[in-house]
Amino acid sequence: MIIHAYAAMAAREKLENFQYVPKDPGPWDVEVKISHCGICHSDIHLIDNDWGMSIYPLVPGHEIIGTVTEIGSQVNHLQPGRRVGIGWQRSACLTCEWCIGGHENLCPQEEATCVGHHGGFAERIRIDSRFAFPIPEKMKSDEAAPLLCGGITVYSPLRLYHVQPNMKVGVIGIGGLGHLALQFARALGCEVTAFSTSADKEAHAHSFGAHHFIHTKNRSALKNSANTLDFVLNTTFTELDWAGFVNTLRPNGKICTVGATANSIEIPAHLLLGTQRAICGSVIGSRWMIGEMLEFAARHDIKAQIETASMAEVNHAVDRVRKGQARYRLVLTN
Amino acid sequence: MIIHAYAAMAAREKLENFQYVPKDPGPWDVEVKISHCGICHSDIHLIDNDWGMSIYPLVPGHEIIGTVTEIGSQVNHLQPGRRVGIGWQRSACLTCEWCIGGHENLCPQEEATCVGHHGGFAERIRIDSRFAFPIPEKMKSDEAAPLLCGGITVYSPLRLYHVQPNMKVGVIGIGGLGHLALQFARALGCEVTAFSTSADKEAHAHSFGAHHFIHTKNRSALKNSANTLDFVLNTTFTELDWAGFVNTLRPNGKICTVGATANSIEIPAHLLLGTQRAICGSVIGSRWMIGEMLEFAARHDIKAQIETASMAEVNHAVDRVRKGQARYRLVLTN
Repeated sequence: MIIHAYAAMAAREKLENFQYVPKDPGPWDVEVKISHCGICHSDIHLIDNDWGMSIYPLVPGHEIIGTVTEIGSQVNHLQPGRRVGIGWQRSACLTCEWCIGGHENLCPQEEATCVGHHGGFAERIRIDSRFAFPIPEKMKSDEAAPLLCGGITVYSPLRLYHVQPNMKVGVIGIGGLGHLALQFARALGCEVTAFSTSADKEAHAHSFGAHHFIHTKNRSALKNSANTLDFVLNTTFTELDWAGFVNTLRPNGKICTVGATANSIEIPAHLLLGTQRAICGSVIGSRWMIGEMLEFAARHDIKAQIETASMAEVNHAVDRVRKGQARYRLVLTN
Repeated sequence: MIIHAYAAMAAREKLENFQYVPKDPGPWDVEVKISHCGICHSDIHLIDNDWGMSIYPLVPGHEIIGTVTEIGSQVNHLQPGRRVGIGWQRSACLTCEWCIGGHENLCPQEEATCVGHHGGFAERIRIDSRFAFPIPEKMKSDEAAPLLCGGITVYSPLRLYHVQPNMKVGVIGIGGLGHLALQFARALGCEVTAFSTSADKEAHAHSFGAHHFIHTKNRSALKNSANTLDFVLNTTFTELDWAGFVNTLRPNGKICTVGATANSIEIPAHLLLGTQRAICGSVIGSRWMIGEMLEFAARHDIKAQIETASMAEVNHAVDRVRKGQARYRLVLTN
């Protein structure tokens, strides 16, 4: 058995045709025939080895939708033919305090779908069945794929940090993650503000659920938002005016970053102290949270706005994502 | 009626004898004959105008214990003769969302006991009765005084950020605030670590409830604490190795600052992201929390370790606090 895929052979290289022989499936594993795979900005970071953790040949892709074709002897919650999704995380120890507490995303032994394993820019994948999630019937596969990483990445902090319907929520960066965050925050009942450096995203931001749009290149607009928001989600990975955004928070407000920025956070301590504000982080989401997110998204018709490209067009597609041109998520199809 | 007090007439000056005629008491006010007043480091910041908010003549003192001598026409929860405590906050609007939600400490119109009003380095004070708190009978006045600001400042974040008995708690800085924080964290059932730049505080830290003591001038000791704590409380106001201390947190851990540092917090964003850590702030505490703190402290015999001095010795006493020589809180007596 050989799996056809696309791999980067070294950092910052174009992807090439690549074939590999997968490991024999273990008792808990499933094989999935991939129909769709979203391109996440983390795939670009992995291709480029921005985080120093990439292993080549590297097959990116961790927003996978496909159909179960084989199941291991212990698998009884999935059957061949079932449509499933696979995200950033492909396994965890399932025995540590974090796993048994329902926080597998914090497991020190968590394994990523495309780090040391081959990901979803491929025709098939073999993976631990306990990290393959049934996709609600009413969802379209192409629109659902980005929920597996982008979706859970923005949904989890909204739940983790107890965002409530009375709250005023800001989303920084209206891209692959941000356009999903706007939809989730709106569906949670919140008053939603979009922050973007691109004035031309205003109409889209409103269509995704934003009540307000603030063009952050207009410095006075950010200043005028001081003390207005209860929760701000940063989905960008470039430099940020942290003090300016912390200052948009009301007392007891929180700003959470899910954008994997290489930069430092720097703010005067008094911005946190007198108003009991917090700066926090969130990373993907646990298995139960992914299940909840999929059900919630299906109920509220939350979906990625996508462009599609065939797997063969992968390099062109990766290039569009790298340049921030995708509106708003690019999904590869087999 | 004249009140004798000690006041700074300008920034960084020694305190002088000072007399003032207090306003006539309003219907909600009480007059309190002061028996004790703690010296908080915030008093030094106010005397020195470190925060740019001081108004001179400035009578410091906001850890007040005394006896009610007069009550306004609307006061029915306090009677003359009752022993009460007064802390940092002397009033709030009691009608805004924060006040009616039980968070008067976040009221935009909160007034501080010694900013624009004369504080507790005096023989008497007139104040809103709703910010005067009955002191549990079993407490000694001198040991209770520092609870009114130092005590609530460290107790409130432990409760606000949901510190639970299973947690491992660190306290940075073993001084006026820190020695109370160790006692509260221990009484909450936690495993407690004291961080200090003074190796000679180790025995005291253990006597206040610390299970572990880490001398932070030993850099490898801090490094060895990586990933061990669930909640860290910073009580210092000098420069801090923020990245080093954030790194002591386990996943989902929080570091909270109550130390009013003028410095910036600077940390690499990835220290928050992958492990869902948070940096947050806390400021004094609400009225119900002060009541709870006093009851909890009385039940667990939590008290300040104090030195006392007479009001007439105020300048010598302030000097000891300024130099960090008090072990661990200095209380003035009338």
